Amino acid sequence: MIEKKSENLIFNGQQLFYSHQSSALNCEMTFSIFIPPQAKEKKCPVLYWLSGLTCTADNFTSKSGFQRYAAEHGIIVVAPDTSPRGESVKDIKDAWDIGCGAGFYLNATSEGWKDHYQMYDYVVKELPGIIKTNFPCNDKASVSGHSMGGHGALICALKNPQQYQSVSAFAPIVHPLDCPWGTKAFTTYLGDDQTQWSEWDAVELIKQGNKVDHILVEQGLADNFLEDQLKTDSLKTVCAENKLNLILNDREGYDHSYYFISSFIGEHIKWHAQFLN
Amino acid sequence: MIEKKSENLIFNGQQLFYSHQSSALNCEMTFSIFIPPQAKEKKCPVLYWLSGLTCTADNFTSKSGFQRYAAEHGIIVVAPDTSPRGESVKDIKDAWDIGCGAGFYLNATSEGWKDHYQMYDYVVKELPGIIKTNFPCNDKASVSGHSMGGHGALICALKNPQQYQSVSAFAPIVHPLDCPWGTKAFTTYLGDDQTQWSEWDAVELIKQGNKVDHILVEQGLADNFLEDQLKTDSLKTVCAENKLNLILNDREGYDHSYYFISSFIGEHIKWHAQFLN
Repeated sequence: MIEKKSENLIFNGQQLFYSHQSSALNCEMTFSIFIPPQAKEKKCPVLYWLSGLTCTADNFTSKSGFQRYAAEHGIIVVAPDTSPRGESVKDIKDAWDIGCGAGFYLNATSEGWKDHYQMYDYVVKELPGIIKTNFPCNDKASVSGHSMGGHGALICALKNPQQYQSVSAFAPIVHPLDCPWGTKAFTTYLGDDQTQWSEWDAVELIKQGNKVDHILVEQGLADNFLEDQLKTDSLKTVCAENKLNLILNDREGYDHSYYFISSFIGEHIKWHAQFLN
Repeated sequence: MIEKKSENLIFNGQQLFYSHQSSALNCEMTFSIFIPPQAKEKKCPVLYWLSGLTCTADNFTSKSGFQRYAAEHGIIVVAPDTSPRGESVKDIKDAWDIGCGAGFYLNATSEGWKDHYQMYDYVVKELPGIIKTNFPCNDKASVSGHSMGGHGALICALKNPQQYQSVSAFAPIVHPLDCPWGTKAFTTYLGDDQTQWSEWDAVELIKQGNKVDHILVEQGLADNFLEDQLKTDSLKTVCAENKLNLILNDREGYDHSYYFISSFIGEHIKWHAQFLN
């Protein structure tokens, strides 16, 4: 059972928000979904978008301008929230990089967190089932995301290459084991036993032999987080070593903001469309 | 003296926010300005954007996606806040349609309001002076806006046809004398003497003989405010009676939101560009 919260026409497609009770996350969740005009005539493929730290379903939906391109290429776009929410959900007050708004797209195993923080299962299993049941989509899907959500997109695709035709990311956290945001999140959600950590890290998954056919990464060179948190070079290296076909676009002068995403989301959707249509 | 608050690259142009002490409004004000890539080579024309009730300089800047089109056509875009702000500025708590966020682009004359609420002078005189002094603009300018800001754009152009090459509006309040938002604002800012009111009303100005050469209006037919507040038909009638060349696009299914604006802002910027370039 999903409940429609809002509906707006944009570029001749429908931008909708829904809420529903999530069984994976054990709380009420909100997602946005864009239905392109082509869906009146035929079932369309789906692009999942995973947002970054502090975001909800709203940021990408209202700020990126993706609808123009999704309407052009006939792609349904689904943007879930970034974590479980609600009074019963564990959170750390005033910490924007852990807890609510910072689910890190993994399945938590540590006490206090594991009851709700199962974002991986939500994004990879529960949400696609809901989309398939309720909307005019076909069997093709791809995934993209920003920052923490770029990390999410990469691990979802690397762990399920049969489920996603292609994966792209804007300024992704490619190697969370090796950066402050990632080690804080993994310690919190997974505990101190680091043997568990590598299955949620894109660079480690590729080292272990996980593969995807099509990866596109956009990285602003004026991004304040590039050096300490994102470390895009480690993805470049591991893809080269393991013969993965990575397209990495370094963008002079662009930063970590939605202004960067809006500048290149059209190119990403066009790139995904060649695998989805 | 203006102070830069932020700078982001988008579509190869610069999106900037500035604050400054306004002499017209007697308070600190914030505006956004987009500088297209063409400004590195030559001075560019300016499009002023006036936002609607409750907005700041940020809404249009982060949600409309205008930068793609302004970068394409080489147009500087300036978006001011919608009212004076600050501790010393009179406001009515919990009223979103009067006071802060609701300046109505007029010069207030009533006690308590007239000290700060001089948005017309700010938009038509002070702000263009600041832009000319500090940024690479030429002498051509146009004006556009949404809802209350559509009203603002229309009266600015009708009262200063020599200053603006063209005017466009999304879902404008075309006849504030004849709608609840307008009569509340005019009573508050101008007082009960209605002889003053007509100089701030687009339909009345056209009746009195004010003219502009180029007007484009976009109106969603699923706009909840169309019947009671916007009354686009009265603009259509008065333009026909006075032989003004109004292009009015009625858009089936579109509402009052930024999703509507983002769908058609590209066409508006392209339309303004023919008069600005």
